[in-house]
Amino acid sequence: MSLPGQLNPPTRLLLGPGPSDVHPRVLTAMATPLLGHLDPQFLEMMLETQQMLRDAYQTKNPLTFPISATGMAGMEACIVNLIEPGDKMVVCCKGFFGQRMIEVAGRTGAELTVLNQKWGEVFDLNVIRETLQRVRPKVLGIVHAETSTGAHQPIEELGKLCHEFDTLLLIDAVTSLGCVPLHIDTWGVDAVYSCTQKGLSCPPGLSPISFSARAEEALAKRKTKVQSWYFDLTSIRTYWGSDRAYHHTAPITMIYALREGLRLLHEEGLEPRWARHKKNHLALKAGLQAIGLTYTAQEGNQLPQLNAVKIPDGVDDLAIRKRLLTEFGIEIGGGLGDFKGKAWRIGLMGYNSRPNNVYLILGALEQCLTGAGVKIQPGAGVAAAEKVYLG
Amino acid sequence: MSLPGQLNPPTRLLLGPGPSDVHPRVLTAMATPLLGHLDPQFLEMMLETQQMLRDAYQTKNPLTFPISATGMAGMEACIVNLIEPGDKMVVCCKGFFGQRMIEVAGRTGAELTVLNQKWGEVFDLNVIRETLQRVRPKVLGIVHAETSTGAHQPIEELGKLCHEFDTLLLIDAVTSLGCVPLHIDTWGVDAVYSCTQKGLSCPPGLSPISFSARAEEALAKRKTKVQSWYFDLTSIRTYWGSDRAYHHTAPITMIYALREGLRLLHEEGLEPRWARHKKNHLALKAGLQAIGLTYTAQEGNQLPQLNAVKIPDGVDDLAIRKRLLTEFGIEIGGGLGDFKGKAWRIGLMGYNSRPNNVYLILGALEQCLTGAGVKIQPGAGVAAAEKVYLG
Repeated sequence: MSLPGQLNPPTRLLLGPGPSDVHPRVLTAMATPLLGHLDPQFLEMMLETQQMLRDAYQTKNPLTFPISATGMAGMEACIVNLIEPGDKMVVCCKGFFGQRMIEVAGRTGAELTVLNQKWGEVFDLNVIRETLQRVRPKVLGIVHAETSTGAHQPIEELGKLCHEFDTLLLIDAVTSLGCVPLHIDTWGVDAVYSCTQKGLSCPPGLSPISFSARAEEALAKRKTKVQSWYFDLTSIRTYWGSDRAYHHTAPITMIYALREGLRLLHEEGLEPRWARHKKNHLALKAGLQAIGLTYTAQEGNQLPQLNAVKIPDGVDDLAIRKRLLTEFGIEIGGGLGDFKGKAWRIGLMGYNSRPNNVYLILGALEQCLTGAGVKIQPGAGVAAAEKVYLG
Repeated sequence: MSLPGQLNPPTRLLLGPGPSDVHPRVLTAMATPLLGHLDPQFLEMMLETQQMLRDAYQTKNPLTFPISATGMAGMEACIVNLIEPGDKMVVCCKGFFGQRMIEVAGRTGAELTVLNQKWGEVFDLNVIRETLQRVRPKVLGIVHAETSTGAHQPIEELGKLCHEFDTLLLIDAVTSLGCVPLHIDTWGVDAVYSCTQKGLSCPPGLSPISFSARAEEALAKRKTKVQSWYFDLTSIRTYWGSDRAYHHTAPITMIYALREGLRLLHEEGLEPRWARHKKNHLALKAGLQAIGLTYTAQEGNQLPQLNAVKIPDGVDDLAIRKRLLTEFGIEIGGGLGDFKGKAWRIGLMGYNSRPNNVYLILGALEQCLTGAGVKIQPGAGVAAAEKVYLG
C-alpha cells in the first residue's frame, strides 16, 4: 500500500460519553520530550501527580496512582486484586457498566451475586442492606455514574453500610471523577477506579485507582497470587511507592497529561468544578426539554456530565448522529445494551462543560430533529438554556 | 500542598534500554485534538496503522493490532490468550525478560518447563529440539532481543522446528521491532508482542501484537474464557476487526503516535532502518572497546540497538550514571537481575540511533571513567567511532 499521509483529522466536538475533548494545555503537555521512567525528576512528577489525584478523590489513601491502561483496566485491576477464587462478591447492576463488572468478576473465580435494578434507576440502600445481610460478601461493586443510562447512584451512606457486614465497597467512578462530588474517605469507599478521558480532560490511556487501608489489608491477606501480573498492585505499588522498583515502563506522556489535567482541576477548585458541571447541565436540560427530549434516568438522579435522553419515536438514530457529525462536527453517543437505538448520550465533561457547547448542541439538535419531521418551536432549546444562565 | 508548576522537565538524551527519545514528528502528532474512538475517520486511521504494523512485522496476519497498555501487557495478553490451565508451555530463559515470561505464565495455570541459558548467551536450536521432543508443549516462548543482556537470539529456524512438534512459537520482540530484522511470516512466528518506546520512537503506552492463523486457531479452540477481560483477544478483535464493536475506549493519542512512528519507519524503509542501526552500533562498539569496555553478550549475537557492557572493576555504577545524567544530560541503563551493578546498557534505538549520539556518549563516558581513575587514551573512543563511519 502507499504510505498514509500526515495526521490531519477533521475537527470534532466530542459531546459523547467520552472521550471528551482534551484541554489545550494537556495537548501541549503531551508534546513535551520524555524523561526516563526512573529519572529522579520524573519520580518527583509521579509524587506530584499522586498527591493531586488523592486531592481529586478526596482521600489520604497511600495506594493511589494510575494503572497504565484505560478505565476498564482499572475495573479489572481492582477486582482481580480484591478477589481470590471462591470469594463472594455482590455486583449491583443497573446498566451496561454494571454488566461489564459481572463479566470481569466472572473470570476471577468469584462466587457472584447479582442485584439488578431497572436501567435508568438507582439502587435503594435497603435492598442492598438485605443482600449484604444474606450474602455477607467480601466485596460489593457498584457504578457511581452509570454512563449507559445517565443515572447518578448515591454513594454517601454505602460505605458505612458495607462495613457493618465486613464488606469492601468498590465503586466505578469512570464518569464521575472531576465532574460531580466524590469523597472517597468520607463515604468509606474502599476501592475506586476512574479514567482520564472524561472529567479530567485528558486523552484515554490511564485509570487512576485508590485503595483504602481496609482494601490494602485484604490485599496483604491474599493466599494466592493476583491472577494478572500486569495489574498486580502488590508489585506496581513498589514502583509508585518509595522503592521505585521497575515493574513495567510507565506511560510517561500519559502521566504528563494526567498531571496537567489534575493541575487544571485544582486550579479551578473541586467545588467550582462541580458547580460548573451542574450549571451547564441545568441549562442543557432546560433546552433539551424545550425541544421535546426527556431523560432516561429517573428525576433526581441525573448525572450533570452525561445527559442520556430518549430518542423520539420514529426518529432514525444513526441518521441524526451522522448529520450531527458530518454537518455540525459534533459527536454524541448512541445507546448501549438495552438502550441501543433508544437513547442518545450527550456529555458535558471537564473542559467541554461550557455554555457555548450547550448552545451549539441545542441548535444543532433542533435542526436535525426538525429535518426529521419533529415539531419544535424554532429557537426553543437555545432560549430555554439562556434563561437558565441568565437566572 | 501548593499546586505543582507548569510541566518543565530538564532536557535528557535517553540512551538507556527504553524509553528512548520520541521523534519530534511523533511529539507533534500527540498534540493533535482527539477523534472519537468510533469516529469513521478514526476507524480509517486504525486500518492504516494496522497495515503499517503488518508491514513492520513482515506479516499478513489479520490479527495484528496494538494492545492498549505497555509492552509487558503484550506479553501477558499473548500468554493468557494462548494458554489454558493445564496447557504445557516451555519458556527459554536467558535473562530478566525470560524470567518475566515465567512469572507471567506461572499465573495462567500453565504446566511450565523452563530452559535456562547463561545470561549473555543465546540458545542452541538442538537444545530446544530436545526439549520440544520430550515435552511436546502447546507454546514455546523466547525473547528475541534480551534487553537485560544485549543478546540477540536467532529465530530464523525456530518456527519450523516448533511446528514439527505442533508447538506455537511466541516471541518477545519488545526491543527488536524497528531496529533489527524481524520476519514474522517467513520465520513462522505464531505470536509476537512489542512496544512503542524503543524502535518505533514513540512514548511507552501500547504493545503491538500479531497472531498467526495457527495461533488464531488455538484461540478459537479454547474451552475456557481468557482469564483477563481486558486482554481477551476474542473480544478486542471485534473492535479492531470489521465489527468495530466497543470493547474499551482506545487510547487515541497513543494510536496517533504509533501511526506517526510507523510512517517514519516505512518512509525510511525497513532495510535502511536495520542498516542504520547496525552502522551506529559498529561505531559505538569500536568506541567502547577503545575505552576499554567489553560487551556482556557473546560475540556474534550482540544487539545493535542495545549495547550492554561490563562495568570495569572498582568503578561505582551509580556515581557514573548520576554524573552522566546531571552533567551531560544523558540517561543510560543500569543492570537488571543477575547483572545489577555489573552492567551498563546503552540504547541506540529508532530516532536515537544517530552518529552524534554515538560521539556524545563516548565522549561523556571517557570523561566519567577518566574521572573515576580508569586509564583511557584521551579521545580514543570518539576517534575509533569516527574511523568506522569514515570506513
